[in-house]
Amino acid sequence: MPRVELEYPKEAVNSVKRSSDRGVYALRTIHQIINSSRLVHVSFNVPDSPFPVTLPMIGQMGSFARPSADEGDVLDLYLHGYVSARMTNLSRKGTSDGQEDGAGGIPVCISASHVDGLVLALSPFASSYNYRSAVLFGYAVLVSDEEERLYAMELITDSVVPGRWRDARGPPTPAELQSTSILRVRVKSGSAKVRVGEPHDEARDTADAELCARVWSGVVPVHETFGEPIPGPSNSRAVPTYIRDYVKDTNEVSAETAVQAAVEPLKKEKAKESDD
Amino acid sequence: MPRVELEYPKEAVNSVKRSSDRGVYALRTIHQIINSSRLVHVSFNVPDSPFPVTLPMIGQMGSFARPSADEGDVLDLYLHGYVSARMTNLSRKGTSDGQEDGAGGIPVCISASHVDGLVLALSPFASSYNYRSAVLFGYAVLVSDEEERLYAMELITDSVVPGRWRDARGPPTPAELQSTSILRVRVKSGSAKVRVGEPHDEARDTADAELCARVWSGVVPVHETFGEPIPGPSNSRAVPTYIRDYVKDTNEVSAETAVQAAVEPLKKEKAKESDD
Repeated sequence: MPRVELEYPKEAVNSVKRSSDRGVYALRTIHQIINSSRLVHVSFNVPDSPFPVTLPMIGQMGSFARPSADEGDVLDLYLHGYVSARMTNLSRKGTSDGQEDGAGGIPVCISASHVDGLVLALSPFASSYNYRSAVLFGYAVLVSDEEERLYAMELITDSVVPGRWRDARGPPTPAELQSTSILRVRVKSGSAKVRVGEPHDEARDTADAELCARVWSGVVPVHETFGEPIPGPSNSRAVPTYIRDYVKDTNEVSAETAVQAAVEPLKKEKAKESDD
Repeated sequence: MPRVELEYPKEAVNSVKRSSDRGVYALRTIHQIINSSRLVHVSFNVPDSPFPVTLPMIGQMGSFARPSADEGDVLDLYLHGYVSARMTNLSRKGTSDGQEDGAGGIPVCISASHVDGLVLALSPFASSYNYRSAVLFGYAVLVSDEEERLYAMELITDSVVPGRWRDARGPPTPAELQSTSILRVRVKSGSAKVRVGEPHDEARDTADAELCARVWSGVVPVHETFGEPIPGPSNSRAVPTYIRDYVKDTNEVSAETAVQAAVEPLKKEKAKESDD
């Protein structure tokens, strides 16, 4: 763990222009948002088109050189998913081995967002979401080193269900390895935006007793839920503990995160008031 | 409703290269994925940077000219969220009034994804997600017509909770209108990818009785859940029926969608078998 909370440098491309109190540059916050997203959106440009192209992929922050690094450290982003022929060709511009920062690879923008609540204010215009969103900018290359590829495949498999890599069938067959692409993004900058708390109504609206009595205002928490695991046709055993626990624990944390996002600032404010 | 299911033309930029059975060009499917996403990711290019920039925004498909159009029709995408100064300047290149297709605006790529299940196969490499993802390409302009802006604001507010626009405080104040930006995207093409069903294990793995007895395989359904609404500090009434019903109905549909994604193809296959 680093002794200080590292931050990405604030530059033109990543600086949060509006509601700057919502802007966060801490690596830990940004990496946690990325790592807790089931999918990230990867945007890049292709020749002869005015449109960026965006693909959903599975992404996890990691460090092959120092696997024990924590989420607050300088990390790379490993990506797995369908890597199009266009993207492969573009990312081959840089090789993954011994490459200097920015010496090659395809410029990508990676984004991930969690909605934690519907914030319903008295006016539609004061309404909002509680959310956590992060964006990373960097250069993506196809990883060719077999050891690093295996490191990333385990990282990504265990992001779906922790412990799955060790439990599932291994080792990978040559065909499996051959058909699996891993991209590594050397991160150049990033930022996050986070909104928590109750609706922020205008004074003229909260002073309107008729309006407050007529229109409900508050937060509807939003979170991801895992349902009851459904066995596939090849299955012949009960759901193992590591899956059952992961489902249960993740559901509890997700639901609690959404509620905390709605009430935490309220509680803090009350604590502060009682301090005064 | 159109008499045939319209499709976006298959072009270089939107064609689904891999697992083409998962690729879908039907407007209805693509628009439904966009409309049911709490956030969409909007990517665009800025001058003097190699990186596309991606912003999370609220997006809804609509037709100001024909508000009764359904999700299978040709529609525009309306976006609301933080529109950066850079994006504003870029999108002003095209005005919204009387503009011909592609005559102006900023080229954008919009993406939205739902994860419906963790598909855990016997091998990590056969594992996957059940998911629905969509991408749209088009040109975004700032909407300046006040009537169209109000149409879009209602559309977007009601996408958060149906009926909210009419219930909440209205009409908008001049300051509220002035501080709210709406973008309209004239869609040029789009596509979707959808994966449903059980794990597709390799024959050598399903034939391995020891493996099948040791490793659980199947699908963990994943869906969004609304929690119990939390009243804000200005609230003085019970949760109204339209919010309570929306929370309950959406939760039921979301949970059912995830389970159906896991089991529907199984059921279909069984029905087919019994036909034989």
